[in-house]
Amino acid sequence: MRIRIGILGYGNLGKGVEKAVTQNEDQELKAVFTRRDPASVKPASGAAACSVEDLPKWKDEIDVLVLCGGSATDLPEQTPRYASLFNVVDSFDTHARIPEHFAAVDQATGDAGKIGVISCGWDPGMFSLSRIYAHSILPDGKDYTFWGRGVSQGHSDAIRRIEGVVDARQYTVPVEAAMQQVRSGANPELTTRQKHTRECFVVAEEGADLARIEKEIKEMPNYFADYDTSVEFISAEEMKANHSELPHGGVVMYSGRTGDKKHVIEYSLKLDSNPEFTGSVIAAVARAAYRMNKEGQTGARTMFDIAPKYLSPQTDEWLRAHYL
Amino acid sequence: MRIRIGILGYGNLGKGVEKAVTQNEDQELKAVFTRRDPASVKPASGAAACSVEDLPKWKDEIDVLVLCGGSATDLPEQTPRYASLFNVVDSFDTHARIPEHFAAVDQATGDAGKIGVISCGWDPGMFSLSRIYAHSILPDGKDYTFWGRGVSQGHSDAIRRIEGVVDARQYTVPVEAAMQQVRSGANPELTTRQKHTRECFVVAEEGADLARIEKEIKEMPNYFADYDTSVEFISAEEMKANHSELPHGGVVMYSGRTGDKKHVIEYSLKLDSNPEFTGSVIAAVARAAYRMNKEGQTGARTMFDIAPKYLSPQTDEWLRAHYL
Repeated sequence: MRIRIGILGYGNLGKGVEKAVTQNEDQELKAVFTRRDPASVKPASGAAACSVEDLPKWKDEIDVLVLCGGSATDLPEQTPRYASLFNVVDSFDTHARIPEHFAAVDQATGDAGKIGVISCGWDPGMFSLSRIYAHSILPDGKDYTFWGRGVSQGHSDAIRRIEGVVDARQYTVPVEAAMQQVRSGANPELTTRQKHTRECFVVAEEGADLARIEKEIKEMPNYFADYDTSVEFISAEEMKANHSELPHGGVVMYSGRTGDKKHVIEYSLKLDSNPEFTGSVIAAVARAAYRMNKEGQTGARTMFDIAPKYLSPQTDEWLRAHYL
Repeated sequence: MRIRIGILGYGNLGKGVEKAVTQNEDQELKAVFTRRDPASVKPASGAAACSVEDLPKWKDEIDVLVLCGGSATDLPEQTPRYASLFNVVDSFDTHARIPEHFAAVDQATGDAGKIGVISCGWDPGMFSLSRIYAHSILPDGKDYTFWGRGVSQGHSDAIRRIEGVVDARQYTVPVEAAMQQVRSGANPELTTRQKHTRECFVVAEEGADLARIEKEIKEMPNYFADYDTSVEFISAEEMKANHSELPHGGVVMYSGRTGDKKHVIEYSLKLDSNPEFTGSVIAAVARAAYRMNKEGQTGARTMFDIAPKYLSPQTDEWLRAHYL
């Protein structure tokens, strides 16, 4: 029997999870749930679109519910709520609030006999795993994370909120010289500005004050003020032709030592589609959640708590024969 | 209380494990065990050197015994034998014999209530983890492992067995063009010869037939015949000055797809010392073995079975706050 998956939220991430689940032979997408009018949602895989209100009725039809909402307001409410009905997986990424989110999910899942894996994807997620493995192996060392080149949806959204902006796409770009310094084993102290630059492509309203928009972007606190930022105004046509995709990636570098010997570890991702790769990680974690719960495990988890074998559809014997 | 570690076998790997254990604040090296005369062994850390015959007496003094012998004859005998007395970790790397080794260790540890983790290090080990994570996330894809540039001790030994050879060092070198092809997402089919070349540095006896030695190396089946191999004869002084270290490393590349989107994952290591990095992985696994056994787990394991959190000395809360 295949693992029955439900998806709540059908944005970029929900679509990425859908694509991953349909690619996994041991999984089956039962339905997509939405807060919109279900009639307006047409899942690409042909799966049913249902109202979020109907979710409780699916209690015995879904093994793992994947929550594809945002970390700001959706997940803090949704993950604990549905953890009382389903095994759940989310990609919660508001770092400062992870302890309280973990605690809420732990309580809900524990009471219901379910498992809930939070903060899955590639960062948090695969990049977090790179950090824990490297630090555990080489305690005398330092990790560096570089993101990009890739589209930051949060930064793109921030630009779109500026008056006179019709559309925007922001690329986070790692500074090559900084990466080379780390690769050399120099263990540098790097400022925010030394690690990344930000490239913005903006479609402005006709007649908008471009100088003012550019200034507002470059001076925006938290998002841009601490970075070297470039702003280029383009047409709506150019935006559509050249900036419709959501590529991303990055690298976790770790520079460590055993006495006088240096060791450099790198884990890098080069992704054509950020949401499709993130969705693929989540689909593998959904498999692990299902299997761990079947074994009697309940409560909140992160990818740190998952033995790699649970992520794979293969048997332990097969894994030892082929991947070890 | 610190985790009490014992080391059996004090060659390059044993010394690497010793260095790692003394670098880990939660671990303590109780003693090094040897088949040689213990009086002739002086551990660099100042730990006691004892005869392998005394090991059973240390049953209650050692939490995890690390087996640092060779895979050909030492480990198949030693790991199961000592698994009846201690939690054990080894770096068994004879791929074809892993199923029987796993079964033997599983039986011995199971009977004794101990845990035994086999095939730890970087390949098998960290590279194996890269493969299982990548395949689990992106089932439609292919992995490629490139080794080097680094010293292969097995190939160096093979050259030393040739008549007229005093000393030898063999470097495995990945072919840059092949790596670039994989990085591009082209999913090429690569032959052995296309992936690696082999560079040999040889000290010959005075008056030895160098042409014959070079021919014997290049035509040696399994080791060199399938590769483009270069042979350079050097002096003993040059060998000592330029080839005394044991650097190694490599990269696991994975090229996968979600529909028409390509994703490339790379995990790379650049190590000043192969045995010291391998020893560091093993020390982290020894921590995991100890903790998993404390929780009641027994039997044989590989790194596929270990949730990453067990490798770290930090608490779950700390890990979520700092590495997630």
